[in-house]
Amino acid sequence: MQAFKLLIQYDGTRYRGWQRQTGTDQTIQGKLEAVLSRSLGVPVQIQGSGRTDAGVHALGQVASFQAETNLEADQILALCRAYLPEDIGVVWVKPASPRFHARLNATGKTYRYRVWNSDEPCIFQRRYVYSFPDPLDLTRMEQAAKLLLGRHDFLGFSADKVGKKSTVRTITAIDIHRDGPEVVFTYSGDGFLRQMVRILTGTLLEIGRGEREAQSVLQILQTGRRADAGFTVPAKGLCLMEVRYD
Amino acid sequence: MQAFKLLIQYDGTRYRGWQRQTGTDQTIQGKLEAVLSRSLGVPVQIQGSGRTDAGVHALGQVASFQAETNLEADQILALCRAYLPEDIGVVWVKPASPRFHARLNATGKTYRYRVWNSDEPCIFQRRYVYSFPDPLDLTRMEQAAKLLLGRHDFLGFSADKVGKKSTVRTITAIDIHRDGPEVVFTYSGDGFLRQMVRILTGTLLEIGRGEREAQSVLQILQTGRRADAGFTVPAKGLCLMEVRYD
Repeated sequence: MQAFKLLIQYDGTRYRGWQRQTGTDQTIQGKLEAVLSRSLGVPVQIQGSGRTDAGVHALGQVASFQAETNLEADQILALCRAYLPEDIGVVWVKPASPRFHARLNATGKTYRYRVWNSDEPCIFQRRYVYSFPDPLDLTRMEQAAKLLLGRHDFLGFSADKVGKKSTVRTITAIDIHRDGPEVVFTYSGDGFLRQMVRILTGTLLEIGRGEREAQSVLQILQTGRRADAGFTVPAKGLCLMEVRYD
Repeated sequence: MQAFKLLIQYDGTRYRGWQRQTGTDQTIQGKLEAVLSRSLGVPVQIQGSGRTDAGVHALGQVASFQAETNLEADQILALCRAYLPEDIGVVWVKPASPRFHARLNATGKTYRYRVWNSDEPCIFQRRYVYSFPDPLDLTRMEQAAKLLLGRHDFLGFSADKVGKKSTVRTITAIDIHRDGPEVVFTYSGDGFLRQMVRILTGTLLEIGRGEREAQSVLQILQTGRRADAGFTVPAKGLCLMEVRYD
């Protein structure tokens, strides 16, 4: 039995998200497992560092799998490159410790959200940005972002229900900057709840547009009520940039 | 009668090129004329600065038209933005002199050709770059590029046949540089023949890969034989960046 680690990129536009589902083969995990199983001649199940939702992209998704194979990492890489569709790419395949698990061992992640903050047409990036032309006050958004840093219960900023699983997470950095016609939000933390980055971004946009106070994020953290937070921005602006391991 | 000038961007992937054709509505000119005619309530014919081939993109195409209308430039802009498909955008519409003609008055153009010069997957730019992973010697290509500068008969570098029209053009600059995994070719000149930028780039790539001498471009200029030049790179890497007017 050999263990492998993969770095994966994908354009999520055509897919129903990372996670394999019955009834559709349009998932990233499903496509990867199909190519790996066919290439290795044995059924392969891979673990991603986490699920990405339908329409979300990745430049730095990490996955792991174990398989009974004589193939080396570079041979597996070549087979992936030959057989994967053009919107899913494997950057590298490396041998991993048999104990390595892409989800369980992940200690940090970085997501980027791209907003097209302009009236001008957005032709070439249209699948990867959310068009929001209203004027945005970056200083206000940065004030709110500071209040979100650190360890909090982010239940109010997530699509998760109250349950057994902890909704406490630590955000280590939020960067907001202009890049030409875009406003780019970059979030780093130990992990993110379901739709958390998209709800954080929607809330920050409402603050940046002046319809909500920066301080209001404290109330959302306190009440844990989804209804107190802002809207959920569309999936297409979101990209998983990096997964960190110790 | 009012005259207008437009700056247009498009993703050429879905289109059969700029020029209106019978039998298909999948042309940039056709889409623009349909939207303008419907918006203004009168038939509108527009002139582009030049045709772009099927699959070629534009960040800086310029077009002009005249129409009997009471609408102002900004109203026409808003109508274009409301009704054009998401892969065609109008950056601005301005009133123009009645004598302005986007093709006849053009004095210079700049095209960019993007080569993905890496084994790594190219997920997000895949519609806009040509994947050519072989090692490239930029110095060799720059030597050849220098020989192409100036006023020459570029018949050998074009898909045109010998005819009544002059195939003499002046190239004022060719820039070749690395940008991460890409090698980007930028060509400026007073005008370009049919497929000229794509054949120049294919020839330079053969030189950069070492299978052809830099000096060989002189022979192509002398003989005017298409067969002496290199291959035609695919349309998708090409983008019209700028059209200049005095």
